[in-house]
Parts: sequence; structure tokens; C-alpha cells
Amino acid sequence: MKNRLKEVAVIGLGLMGGSFALSLKGINPECRITGYDHNDQHCIEALELNLVDRITDEISDLYDMDLIVLAIPVDGIISTLKELTDVSSHTTIMDLGSTKSLIVESVPDKIRKNFVATHPMTGTEKFGPSAAFAELYRGKAVVLCNIEDSGKEQRKLVKEIYGYMGMKIFYMDAKEHDRHAAFISHMPHALSYSLANAVMKQENPQAILALAGGGFRDMSRIAKSSPNMWLDIFRQNKSNLLEAIECLKDELNKCEEMVKKEEWERLREWMLNANELHNIL
Amino acid sequence: MKNRLKEVAVIGLGLMGGSFALSLKGINPECRITGYDHNDQHCIEALELNLVDRITDEISDLYDMDLIVLAIPVDGIISTLKELTDVSSHTTIMDLGSTKSLIVESVPDKIRKNFVATHPMTGTEKFGPSAAFAELYRGKAVVLCNIEDSGKEQRKLVKEIYGYMGMKIFYMDAKEHDRHAAFISHMPHALSYSLANAVMKQENPQAILALAGGGFRDMSRIAKSSPNMWLDIFRQNKSNLLEAIECLKDELNKCEEMVKKEEWERLREWMLNANELHNIL
Repeated sequence: MKNRLKEVAVIGLGLMGGSFALSLKGINPECRITGYDHNDQHCIEALELNLVDRITDEISDLYDMDLIVLAIPVDGIISTLKELTDVSSHTTIMDLGSTKSLIVESVPDKIRKNFVATHPMTGTEKFGPSAAFAELYRGKAVVLCNIEDSGKEQRKLVKEIYGYMGMKIFYMDAKEHDRHAAFISHMPHALSYSLANAVMKQENPQAILALAGGGFRDMSRIAKSSPNMWLDIFRQNKSNLLEAIECLKDELNKCEEMVKKEEWERLREWMLNANELHNIL
Repeated sequence: MKNRLKEVAVIGLGLMGGSFALSLKGINPECRITGYDHNDQHCIEALELNLVDRITDEISDLYDMDLIVLAIPVDGIISTLKELTDVSSHTTIMDLGSTKSLIVESVPDKIRKNFVATHPMTGTEKFGPSAAFAELYRGKAVVLCNIEDSGKEQRKLVKEIYGYMGMKIFYMDAKEHDRHAAFISHMPHALSYSLANAVMKQENPQAILALAGGGFRDMSRIAKSSPNMWLDIFRQNKSNLLEAIECLKDELNKCEEMVKKEEWERLREWMLNANELHNIL
């Protein structure tokens, strides 16, 4: 595999891209990593932190790479793919985007075989190059979407990389992925932002927050997440997100009704049912 | 303080009571701790785990204790206080209940000075004696309610104990406490149960949950919590809980509307506002 990972480009040098670069260095310490980012400050930091070996601002510099990793928001992935139609036939392009349908629909035909659509289910609420760390991906799930449309060599390389990173690989249709991701990730973010805002709106949020224990901290943690990234995800996965929010509201309304009507036995059943989740998870 | 902590009773030998017993042994290794619990299995386990030194099933055995800790659900606290009206004048009774208004309203006058109403803002989703650990309380917040109604010696002892445990002590009126707790703890539990149930209700929850990353795990963690304990809390703090759920739903509805109408700039502001929470927390 090292032979096929000599020249690598990482587009987007934040938490995901920076951590990916560090992981690749773990697989092949000799690989040369070129960074590309519209944010000059991120480029400087990524060099200082040794996430990348060099920076370019010429997309054509990347045409002959072994691997190009798109670690930017989904709308950026879609527009950047259109600038990469002249890559070599051996080049593998992979993305780390959080929604997949719009991406696989918009890959230019000419580079469809070069491209592998992936979504590593990992992240933290932090962002930027300084948030990057090599172990971000280890032990986590990654979804590969519509893999039958990717070239044989490209599939193989991406699977090997994720295997080396210690990720659990799942295969899924992009539409199915987006629906699942809405429930497991996107709607919970909407919920965490809502929780934070509900408390911030109270008369004395400081007094309330002074009492915060682990439960509240855990539930509000992802409300720290980057609006840039999450706006983009909410936009790209709008209909699935709205459906998931409706499902959540159904359950919350049910809970509210049972409390109002003091239906304690039904409420107990409902709580016991929720407990069951952890037999699966 | 050790002189005033020779004979201690812990009523309720689960996570909270068991951990409290372990903490007290840290303050005064010579204190003798008597356990009391309606669940025989918990009594056996608590002895085996050395959480307590002896077990009794006679409430009158506890009348002459230096300290009685009520680590049971709120309705149990209210009924047990009525059985403790014959305690010695020097005895301190404290509770760890999650709601406070109904408790302070129902303490029998005869033992009002003996009693200190407290709520340590800590816990885990685990329960039972085997979940107990000495450090559960360290560094966390504890609220003392309507402290002016407690006797001087009793206040002093409880403050000293929580001080030794490394807790941050807050003073509050019971009504104010219950409102704050609804926002910081009770409503988030309703939310976490709702999230778990929303996912469990989908066609293929296994496939969805296979993708769970840290965000979902954190947000669904407290959905493992004991229905017995949380039913009781939802019942005791009904009106505040319902108000907090309404506030949360207002925010979630706002988010849903902005996504539906594609009001991305307003949504960004809303997310940025949620980010602010972490400048306070």
C-alpha cells in the first residue's frame, strides 16, 4: 500500500483533514502530504503543527496525486470535485462529508471511478488544525457509499487505509446513509443546540449552569460545534433531518402527555423501552 | 467533626447512598455505618462490597444516630421522614433527593431542625450498590435548600461533610432549586429518553446504531437511567419539568422552521448563540 501513498493531498486542514493527515503519516511515514485550504491561517498552523509537508494554492498541483482527501463541508466537496476532472487515471479521490446523496449525484462522470464516497462517524466539538489528533479515527465506524461506482483500485486503497486506521467499515447506499445519519448525528445536533438555547434564554442562565452535572454537560457538548459545518449539513440533508426531528418530537410530546396526565405506568414502559437501546449500542 | 460522625445510617444503598458511605469512611475511617434498604439483595451486596458495616431492618435502630442519610427516591424520603420523628435532638438527617419543594414542605415540624435538604448534582446512568464509588461527589455542585430552617449544628455538620468531599456548595430556595433542576437535569433526561425511543422505533435500529459516534453516545447515555428513580422525579417536579420541555420544544420548533424555510443566516445566529453556553459552563 505504501507505494500507492507517496503523494497525498488533503483539502481542508481542520479537525478531520488534519487528523487524517496524521493517520496517513502513521501508515506511511515517507508519504509527502500537500495541504490546500482557503483559510491562510489554517495553512500556516497546519505547517507549524507538522500536519502537512507543504502547502499549495494551485488545484492543478494536485492532479497527479496518489490520493486526494476532501475534508471540507459538503458544498465545498461538490464544487471542488468539478475542479478535479483532470486528475490522473490512477488518482484516488475520497471525501469525508457528512451527507452523501448530493455528493454521489454530482460527481462528474469523468472522475466517477476515481472517487470513493466515505463518511467516518467521528469528530469532536472542536475545530481547526490545532484540534487534530492521530487517533480520531481509531475504533470508529466509517460508511462507504455506492462503492460499486468506484474503480477497483480506488476501492481497494480506501478500504486498506481505513483498515489500517482501525475503523469498522460499513457499506450503504447514499440515500440510506443520509437517513441513518440524520437520526444518529444530525438531529441530535439540532437537539443539543436547542437544549443550549433553551437554557441560555432563561432569566438567570449562570445560576442554572452552576448546577450542571455530567448529564447536562454530555448533552450540551455538541452544541459547541461549528455553525459553518452544521449549517451545511442541515442544508444538504434537509428532508431527512426534518423527518428525524418530527420523530423526536413525537416521542417528546408523548412523554409530555404522560407526565401531564400522570400516566406513570405508561411512562415507566416508555423509559424501559429507551433503556433497551443500550442492549444494542 | 469525627466526633460527630461516629454512628451513621445510610437509607438506600444504591449508587448515591453507597458512594456517600464510601466518602464518609474517607472522612472518618472509624465511623460505623448502618445500612437500611427494602431491597434484601442490595443489603447483601452493600455488606459484601464493604459499603456498610452492618444492616438493620428496624427504623428505630436509627433514632440515636449522629447522621442519617436518605438516599432514596423523593416519595420514599417524604414517607421515611414521618417515621423518624423520634430521633435524638442531636441527630442530623439529610437527604440527597433530586427535587426539594415537596420534601421541605412535608418535613414533620418536630424534626425540622434535625433535617437538612440537599441535592448533590452528580450521578451516573448506573445504579445499585455495585455502581458506588468514593469519588462520585468530588468537584461537583451541591445545593442546600431552605438552610435557615435547619438547626445550627446540623447545618454545620452537613457543610463540613460536603466541604471534605470537595463539593461546591450553593444555597437556594427549594422552589428555585426545582425550577433550575428541571432545566439542567430533568428535562435533559426526558430528551435523552425521547432520543433513544425515536431511534428504537425506526425500521432498522441496529443499522442506525452501528454508526453511532461520540455525540450520539453522549446524548443517549442518560437514557439508560433507572425508570424507578426518574418516574419519581418527573412526578415530584411535574410543573417545572413541563415548563422546561415547552422551552426546549420552542427552540426545536424554531430550528425546524428555519430549516424548512431555509433561513440559513438566522439558523447560523441561533447556532452561534448556542455556542455561547460554553463560555459560561
